[in-house]
Amino acid sequence: MKKVGIVMGSDSDLPVVGKAMETLDQLGVPYEAHVYSAHRTPSEARAFAEGAKQNGFGVIIAAAGMAAHLAGALAAGTTLPVIGIPVSSAKLGGLDALLSTVQMPSGIPVATVAIDGAKNAAYLAAQILAVGDEDLGQKLDKARAEAAREVLKKDADIISKYNK
Amino acid sequence: MKKVGIVMGSDSDLPVVGKAMETLDQLGVPYEAHVYSAHRTPSEARAFAEGAKQNGFGVIIAAAGMAAHLAGALAAGTTLPVIGIPVSSAKLGGLDALLSTVQMPSGIPVATVAIDGAKNAAYLAAQILAVGDEDLGQKLDKARAEAAREVLKKDADIISKYNK
Amino acid sequence: MKKVGIVMGSDSDLPVVGKAMETLDQLGVPYEAHVYSAHRTPSEARAFAEGAKQNGFGVIIAAAGMAAHLAGALAAGTTLPVIGIPVSSAKLGGLDALLSTVQMPSGIPVATVAIDGAKNAAYLAAQILAVGDEDLGQKLDKARAEAAREVLKKDADIISKYNK
Amino acid sequence: MKKVGIVMGSDSDLPVVGKAMETLDQLGVPYEAHVYSAHRTPSEARAFAEGAKQNGFGVIIAAAGMAAHLAGALAAGTTLPVIGIPVSSAKLGGLDALLSTVQMPSGIPVATVAIDGAKNAAYLAAQILAVGDEDLGQKLDKARAEAAREVLKKDADIISKYNK
Amino acid sequence: MKKVGIVMGSDSDLPVVGKAMETLDQLGVPYEAHVYSAHRTPSEARAFAEGAKQNGFGVIIAAAGMAAHLAGALAAGTTLPVIGIPVSSAKLGGLDALLSTVQMPSGIPVATVAIDGAKNAAYLAAQILAVGDEDLGQKLDKARAEAAREVLKKDADIISKYNK
Amino acid sequence: MKKVGIVMGSDSDLPVVGKAMETLDQLGVPYEAHVYSAHRTPSEARAFAEGAKQNGFGVIIAAAGMAAHLAGALAAGTTLPVIGIPVSSAKLGGLDALLSTVQMPSGIPVATVAIDGAKNAAYLAAQILAVGDEDLGQKLDKARAEAAREVLKKDADIISKYNK
Amino acid sequence: MKKVGIVMGSDSDLPVVGKAMETLDQLGVPYEAHVYSAHRTPSEARAFAEGAKQNGFGVIIAAAGMAAHLAGALAAGTTLPVIGIPVSSAKLGGLDALLSTVQMPSGIPVATVAIDGAKNAAYLAAQILAVGDEDLGQKLDKARAEAAREVLKKDADIISKYNK
Amino acid sequence: MKKVGIVMGSDSDLPVVGKAMETLDQLGVPYEAHVYSAHRTPSEARAFAEGAKQNGFGVIIAAAGMAAHLAGALAAGTTLPVIGIPVSSAKLGGLDALLSTVQMPSGIPVATVAIDGAKNAAYLAAQILAVGDEDLGQKLDKARAEAAREVLKKDADIISKYNK
Repeated sequence: MKKVGIVMGSDSDLPVVGKAMETLDQLGVPYEAHVYSAHRTPSEARAFAEGAKQNGFGVIIAAAGMAAHLAGALAAGTTLPVIGIPVSSAKLGGLDALLSTVQMPSGIPVATVAIDGAKNAAYLAAQILAVGDEDLGQKLDKARAEAAREVLKKDADIISKYNK
Repeated sequence: MKKVGIVMGSDSDLPVVGKAMETLDQLGVPYEAHVYSAHRTPSEARAFAEGAKQNGFGVIIAAAGMAAHLAGALAAGTTLPVIGIPVSSAKLGGLDALLSTVQMPSGIPVATVAIDGAKNAAYLAAQILAVGDEDLGQKLDKARAEAAREVLKKDADIISKYNK
Repeated sequence: MKKVGIVMGSDSDLPVVGKAMETLDQLGVPYEAHVYSAHRTPSEARAFAEGAKQNGFGVIIAAAGMAAHLAGALAAGTTLPVIGIPVSSAKLGGLDALLSTVQMPSGIPVATVAIDGAKNAAYLAAQILAVGDEDLGQKLDKARAEAAREVLKKDADIISKYNK
Repeated sequence: MKKVGIVMGSDSDLPVVGKAMETLDQLGVPYEAHVYSAHRTPSEARAFAEGAKQNGFGVIIAAAGMAAHLAGALAAGTTLPVIGIPVSSAKLGGLDALLSTVQMPSGIPVATVAIDGAKNAAYLAAQILAVGDEDLGQKLDKARAEAAREVLKKDADIISKYNK
Repeated sequence: MKKVGIVMGSDSDLPVVGKAMETLDQLGVPYEAHVYSAHRTPSEARAFAEGAKQNGFGVIIAAAGMAAHLAGALAAGTTLPVIGIPVSSAKLGGLDALLSTVQMPSGIPVATVAIDGAKNAAYLAAQILAVGDEDLGQKLDKARAEAAREVLKKDADIISKYNK
Repeated sequence: MKKVGIVMGSDSDLPVVGKAMETLDQLGVPYEAHVYSAHRTPSEARAFAEGAKQNGFGVIIAAAGMAAHLAGALAAGTTLPVIGIPVSSAKLGGLDALLSTVQMPSGIPVATVAIDGAKNAAYLAAQILAVGDEDLGQKLDKARAEAAREVLKKDADIISKYNK
Repeated sequence: MKKVGIVMGSDSDLPVVGKAMETLDQLGVPYEAHVYSAHRTPSEARAFAEGAKQNGFGVIIAAAGMAAHLAGALAAGTTLPVIGIPVSSAKLGGLDALLSTVQMPSGIPVATVAIDGAKNAAYLAAQILAVGDEDLGQKLDKARAEAAREVLKKDADIISKYNK
Repeated sequence: MKKVGIVMGSDSDLPVVGKAMETLDQLGVPYEAHVYSAHRTPSEARAFAEGAKQNGFGVIIAAAGMAAHLAGALAAGTTLPVIGIPVSSAKLGGLDALLSTVQMPSGIPVATVAIDGAKNAAYLAAQILAVGDEDLGQKLDKARAEAAREVLKKDADIISKYNK
């Protein structure tokens, strides 16, 4: 199976990005995690993106905050799908990171998920890999069904507790 | 090759969505376009999403404005990757559609592109299909190279015109 | 009396939604609470909305955060009035939920109240039921008068404490 | 049948509010329209609200822009449901009117619809009256079905034009 | 000397409004504080505004949060200058209150100060009364000079501590 | 009668500021208009503010756009009340000017009116002067009554045209 | 004298960037203009930044819209001062470009000017070069004095036209 | 070497501004810190700006919050480059300070860095002084290289911890 590349702009993004790793672990999707900064180590970030296809990656997840250029910088170096996680900070609640990630110019898309949405970045990465991998597709369908069951169990709890 | 499903919430979104179709045409990626409203025809929208995998689709593009639920509603019905295009309107410049599309809860990601970013939605769809399709990957690499050449030609124009 | 249907997208919305239940209890308005997610259990959510009229509901309250599609999804399945409570989250203060709830397209209104405004959702539900129920109308008028009296008591406190 | 009271803050709101009147005409719902300003004619606005129940109104629609206090001011004078239409202006796209209308304090709800969403205000008013009026409920169900059919016709147009 | 009327929409605004009272106490400006809600006690609020001129008030300060109508509602009832303090809440940081207070329609101005800017509301009230009161004007000039001296003292501290 | 000082940051603000002059003309309030930039002619702006009291001014209106410092800069130079008009520009709709004008630090208030709210700036200036001038107060009361009559005339028009 | 490097992300930014060139021409500051895209020609952009110091540049101006990464990408490749011009687009008024340009992480500053503020970018570039160039400093002082004179001439016009 | 002038609007800005001083200390760049308020001590602020060039300053850093006029006020008094740090406050997260600092009118630029971006203000000041100072340029290049090394060390940590 192709791997997911996970790149964070700083190790301070690990509490967010960690949830992407957990989710990929649960789905049995291999990944490789890196800290590359679009601004402090642009060459390494770029080299990673340019070599990603040959190095067995099928999709890249990039997480960064503030003027979050990381996802866009990686997307500029590869035609693999790049998923962007805008990371929130205390000041603008992640609006800066969201706009910096999603408002990409024509030709270089970034598949943006919610602010701090690392879990969904992992699901999206798996869904992309599952386009050519039926087994993974079935795992995803199962995870969906399980998520639905959890909601319905909570519904049952609420019903028994609040509805007379 | 798997098809791209293109769903718009209203035919008034066609001027935006048309650019996705053009781009897919240029890349030789087959697609099927539909008008389904998450609110006015929720059953048809849902049926499309639930049947998409069996009907030969590999990825879905959804375009909607305002409280743009369409991409999320389709994503709820399939584990295929769903790309959301937030469509701008005159009042809030598309901020409402952007937040309604991108801020999805855990488990149901929408790969969101820029406001009115239909061209990038098409590129992203092609990039996703290209994970398992080397020929398409090469077409995308060529399109990138061509885009770079255009920028450099414009640079040459600017140099000759403004730099003495 | 017709019942109020209360649907929350997740049981994490209970601290907000609980205030709607308290208020309906105070007004003696019957209700039934559920956890249905527009994205994780769309069929159950839809079935609830489609059956609501026959099942004795007169109005529905829906509470959800982020890309809050729940109220709109329920509104798409019934012509009963649907009241939307945008639930705040830490990042954007509920602006995402507000725009996702209120900016509905023509034909499918959602009666939106303030961010986390569960108490007002309950009052609005009661006001809607009171259009055809004089007793309930009188209870609401009394609650208003009581609220006014409380303000005036606080005014008296302030006067005695600060005005010389 | 109870009437809908339509109050606009200024006759400059008529292009927006006119669509509410058209929609109510189509649904056969009686209404009475007024121009009352929360700030320039507060007594008349208040008298209208206080007398609305006795004067045969079942629900009130209020449309205003900028620091849109009208809906809230009417809601303060009656326990009838009050629907607020935030009217956009050139500067802030209606965000000021939206927040001024929807962010009501506990006890005095305003059922807020989208910015300039006059058509939906009318539908919501009709839905509220239909809670106690089966005929009107059936008209609303028909309008929904008709709206769905229109979407599907547009889908057929798109299919024949763009899908090969 | 004419009095300053201080009206807060709820006694929960007291921590903010208290600073206005302190400042007026320091300046020796008489005031009278009240709790009136634009929505829960609109008649009392209105009566206060309408009688303010005869009752010896020269200017009114109104503090309210969320869809902050209080200042506007008072301004509608008098041609005395009305100063509005938008009170912040946890969710939107007071942006809702700011827009609801400042974006008043033509003819009914509200002199808006910063979010939670109670101290400045008091200064502004005093400045307004000082237009016809030289003594108060001199007190204000002294307070300004004192504030400047404090800044310069802090500058001296910083110089001695950080500049070598 | 004391004069109103009207200062605009640029003569491009004249279409907005002109409405303040018209309104003061209608009310018979004397004024003097100037173009002073807080940034291009800070000394002249400051000299105007510092001399305003002695030169017969009772209140100052300042209009500026973008990082609108003019009102604050004038307020720093006088304890006369300073009214700020945030002037809109094409890009951010005046939000930048609004925040730059209203969010003043403690001690130096600016009485801020709506974005482009020149008419209300004039009314507010007149209301401030009227605190010590009964004749002007009566003119303002008359203008209010006239504005109310106009609303009621429009109400009559609407009634005759739309209510059957 | 060291040159100013002017880089725009697309030749569609020329109407904005052109004003920077005009201003530099007026000040007699040499410049060299280029079109490099942070995403379409990242290598060329980076090479330009990395070679800028050796190639006689003293400061770089970068103009880009939407998720405006250009200034940051150039800043990552040089320790020369980089000035960022956020270019507005129709949808979000340039707020996306502003946040993407200014919210840079620690270590890689971008000197950001106003949305579409090309003229000021040129002035800032000249001011930076003037730190080590007294002649240029004097030109800038003259330009300031001239700008002040223009404001005062407009003030005289306003005085003669509006003040009686 | 020319000094950096650091001006804060209030000593409450010291926790932010302190980081600029630390960074300048690390780079061996001399500075002088002051507390001057644009509104409470405008004359001192202005005198500082007007004398800065003669007093050996090469660049000025100004930090202020809310309606942050300080950087602009200093910029109006000198043609030295002025760097603005918008300081966040609890309410609007610094958006008010950002817009008040960056949206300067033509002719008076402020080089704005990120909200609370004091470290980058110091780097930018050093980069500006380094245009004419090769030694400082080399220190900056070294700091960059060191920052890159730190990122790569963190990358190695992540690799050894998370990649199997």
